[in-house]
Amino acid sequence: MSNKTNPGNFFEDFSLGQEIVHATPRTVSEGDASLYTALYGTRFAVHSSDMFAMSLGFEAAPIDDMLAFHVVFGKTVPDISLNAVANLGYAAGRFGAPVYPGDTLRTTSKVIGLKENSNGKTGVVYVHSAGVNQRDEPVLDYIRWVMVKKNNLSAPAPEPVVPELPAFVVDEDLIIPEGLEMATFDTMLSGSAALWDDYDAGEKIDHVDGMTIEESDHMIATRLYQNTAKVHFNQHTEKEGRFGRRIVYGGHVISLARSLSFNGLANVVRIVAINGGSHTAPSFGGDTIYAWSEILGKSKISGRDDIGALRVRTVACKDQSCEAFPDKGEDGKYAPSVVLDFDYTVLMPRK
Amino acid sequence: MSNKTNPGNFFEDFSLGQEIVHATPRTVSEGDASLYTALYGTRFAVHSSDMFAMSLGFEAAPIDDMLAFHVVFGKTVPDISLNAVANLGYAAGRFGAPVYPGDTLRTTSKVIGLKENSNGKTGVVYVHSAGVNQRDEPVLDYIRWVMVKKNNLSAPAPEPVVPELPAFVVDEDLIIPEGLEMATFDTMLSGSAALWDDYDAGEKIDHVDGMTIEESDHMIATRLYQNTAKVHFNQHTEKEGRFGRRIVYGGHVISLARSLSFNGLANVVRIVAINGGSHTAPSFGGDTIYAWSEILGKSKISGRDDIGALRVRTVACKDQSCEAFPDKGEDGKYAPSVVLDFDYTVLMPRK
Amino acid sequence: MSNKTNPGNFFEDFSLGQEIVHATPRTVSEGDASLYTALYGTRFAVHSSDMFAMSLGFEAAPIDDMLAFHVVFGKTVPDISLNAVANLGYAAGRFGAPVYPGDTLRTTSKVIGLKENSNGKTGVVYVHSAGVNQRDEPVLDYIRWVMVKKNNLSAPAPEPVVPELPAFVVDEDLIIPEGLEMATFDTMLSGSAALWDDYDAGEKIDHVDGMTIEESDHMIATRLYQNTAKVHFNQHTEKEGRFGRRIVYGGHVISLARSLSFNGLANVVRIVAINGGSHTAPSFGGDTIYAWSEILGKSKISGRDDIGALRVRTVACKDQSCEAFPDKGEDGKYAPSVVLDFDYTVLMPRK
Repeated sequence: MSNKTNPGNFFEDFSLGQEIVHATPRTVSEGDASLYTALYGTRFAVHSSDMFAMSLGFEAAPIDDMLAFHVVFGKTVPDISLNAVANLGYAAGRFGAPVYPGDTLRTTSKVIGLKENSNGKTGVVYVHSAGVNQRDEPVLDYIRWVMVKKNNLSAPAPEPVVPELPAFVVDEDLIIPEGLEMATFDTMLSGSAALWDDYDAGEKIDHVDGMTIEESDHMIATRLYQNTAKVHFNQHTEKEGRFGRRIVYGGHVISLARSLSFNGLANVVRIVAINGGSHTAPSFGGDTIYAWSEILGKSKISGRDDIGALRVRTVACKDQSCEAFPDKGEDGKYAPSVVLDFDYTVLMPRK
Repeated sequence: MSNKTNPGNFFEDFSLGQEIVHATPRTVSEGDASLYTALYGTRFAVHSSDMFAMSLGFEAAPIDDMLAFHVVFGKTVPDISLNAVANLGYAAGRFGAPVYPGDTLRTTSKVIGLKENSNGKTGVVYVHSAGVNQRDEPVLDYIRWVMVKKNNLSAPAPEPVVPELPAFVVDEDLIIPEGLEMATFDTMLSGSAALWDDYDAGEKIDHVDGMTIEESDHMIATRLYQNTAKVHFNQHTEKEGRFGRRIVYGGHVISLARSLSFNGLANVVRIVAINGGSHTAPSFGGDTIYAWSEILGKSKISGRDDIGALRVRTVACKDQSCEAFPDKGEDGKYAPSVVLDFDYTVLMPRK
Repeated sequence: MSNKTNPGNFFEDFSLGQEIVHATPRTVSEGDASLYTALYGTRFAVHSSDMFAMSLGFEAAPIDDMLAFHVVFGKTVPDISLNAVANLGYAAGRFGAPVYPGDTLRTTSKVIGLKENSNGKTGVVYVHSAGVNQRDEPVLDYIRWVMVKKNNLSAPAPEPVVPELPAFVVDEDLIIPEGLEMATFDTMLSGSAALWDDYDAGEKIDHVDGMTIEESDHMIATRLYQNTAKVHFNQHTEKEGRFGRRIVYGGHVISLARSLSFNGLANVVRIVAINGGSHTAPSFGGDTIYAWSEILGKSKISGRDDIGALRVRTVACKDQSCEAFPDKGEDGKYAPSVVLDFDYTVLMPRK
């Protein structure tokens, strides 16, 4: 093998406290925003219309928060998860400065935990990844942990360090972009009259619609994010793999669910936190994705009477509509159709 | 069902004179224009080159007129046709201000006709829809009528009102964008020497080429237009539906036919009217679309000797080439391969 | 057949010295750049980040050199190769001014050679094609030769003229964009520490990764380039054709190989020459493309100690990984998996 190609890092290559500057800075463009619309059919007014966004105090229509996530995340793949066996979870994700076309994003990561598995063949790596824009303003940071293969099985196990992970991002840590002002929020243009006040903790919403994934769709999306994980792109090897076919990037399913959630959560103006998330089963080309959401909690924003926060859990299913809210059972096992359980916090205007 | 999701309007929800502000304003971008090129391979010089467009008096390359149509139209779907059984027709469509990247489009509709069907289960709704830009300048208005389901079958039938529909948009009603000047029109760059003077009423043109539709293509297009009609996206339900598969958005076929029409109508600088149109049969992934056109009429533009109007009928067929001009027979029935019969008026430079 | 549709040129329609102004000028946009990323997953930092590109003296992130090639090339298809039997080769390709979003490209061609084949049914046409931007600055010129059908078999054979074709573009003819300065080149952000000094003539690099082609992908790409060659788009006719299916545009495979080459050649900042290239076998939807490269030569750039040139040969294979460097044998025949042999010259920073 040439020493000029990237073999990725194996478990023994990571060390606690290690800082990694990820390659491939990316200037986000209107083209990326158009593709995001074309891939998911998203209709949130704040991301669709410059005028609507500016009426709320944004500089222009920011890109969808999950597009920002995918771009920031994609850069970490060649260094963090090229040799991953599984993407185990996310926590403590916080969105900062809105991302506008023209902004250039970079990502760095710090290793904050390491724990070799008892089989001696794999270990769990915990990283804190941070994306910034061209003014070094944080746009998103989050913790992710992945199970990574060892290459040299005789490498010694590191001292196990498992970071404390918050169950969710607390209100005081949420970042409300400067200058946002919801007084003139137009519910005719946003597509729904339901505002923060109308949602109750415990409420469940079936997002009704379904969207079938084509191979071309998820590959176009994943390449747009410059995410290079091999399992998404190579049918020649994957046909011999565990599932016999390419696996859809989990983030593609998040974005599908997010787009479907418009029908029930149309007035979300911003995702402010990713509290956690599990890709509970793989998705493949041909699967039809449905979604439902549960309001896990709601809270006022200190000093603001025009906007509130909702903690939402969005569950995506494949090939099963969600009017019965497929979920995990009392045994903790998910219904077979469930592919995603995503816990996040959003801002919504108040009445 | 949550009261926060959009059930769409049923026939009994519409009332004569009702005005509807559609959601999801949209800032059109260069990214949308690129995607339109990538989806249809369109080659009209005025939409491809800023310099070419500016040489004719445009501010920049306007987006394809049919892209403007799809964006304006897409916004009406959640309110008008979510519960539609059939899209019955278009009339009186007029294009106004050219749409440039950066413009923000909004759509409103007014109910101008209602007629319950004798079965008591459906009715026909006539709407006049109008798209405007951020300066409230009209960019496109048109009449559409759709057959919509009743939800409450015991709701009383409204007084039947059927608006008078013009057979076509008369010359006096055509809008010629201000500042257009065809004196320097370059037929080398446009790709054809054939100008307005060279076309004769009754002339038929086979556009020769064919384009196969992939599932991914039509879904990417239809999502780009934020058109949410369920039948285009959900194979999980459609496999149990009438055709066993997803139906291609009729507008996608219009745009394919429009793009194919370059080979024979290369010097169209602008669509100024949609006189009528029928989706005579559904199209599906895997179909190959061909097209031919007939010049229905030609007229001079008052006060202009550099530009003329052609009324064109473009017929699209699937899986049949068009050198024999497949059409409707004397019995009014279309040849089985015909999927679209679209009647519109274009501007073309004169010699 | 209407005289308004383009039948393309047949062999007897070309004459030595003939100059052709190709239609469809194109303003390249950020949308095109986004689509290129989404179609190939390319990660070269100079094309991904405005800030990175500007740190090297570019005005902004230029579009990928191969995207510029495809746009310039696409314009020639309706005039040069609509009736081509085979695309035989490229030579003497030189990239000039970098292409930025907002630039408008046009292409002209001159016939520089003609040779009828002994069968009297086809002939080889040699053209020198040149793409320029809105300031008439050359962005790319190259020689291509294609085998084109005769339509009128009784047309007399022209005096055979075969131009002399250079084996490769010599260093003195390479164009180094003004103002480029590699002193601050950041190998953390570019993704590799390997610079010009680290490559040796004769060195081979397996680019490791594979990318499966979907029908939708290659058609979206080829339409984006406004390349109209029929064999890429029409399954209805191609199912009766030589291969029973649509053929992938050869340039799509070049761009896939170029994108895969990032893993091993990450620090290429610019392609400066296309020395030659052969599409040695057709590719189809479903094929998985791999690539490897060989360093054919390296040279210093006169007057520069910050940048050097590498002559590279990139070979693409389908459905076979490249760790064994599949190639042509001593008999000159390519291994059956090889689909592309592309010889080009790139710039890379020096230590």
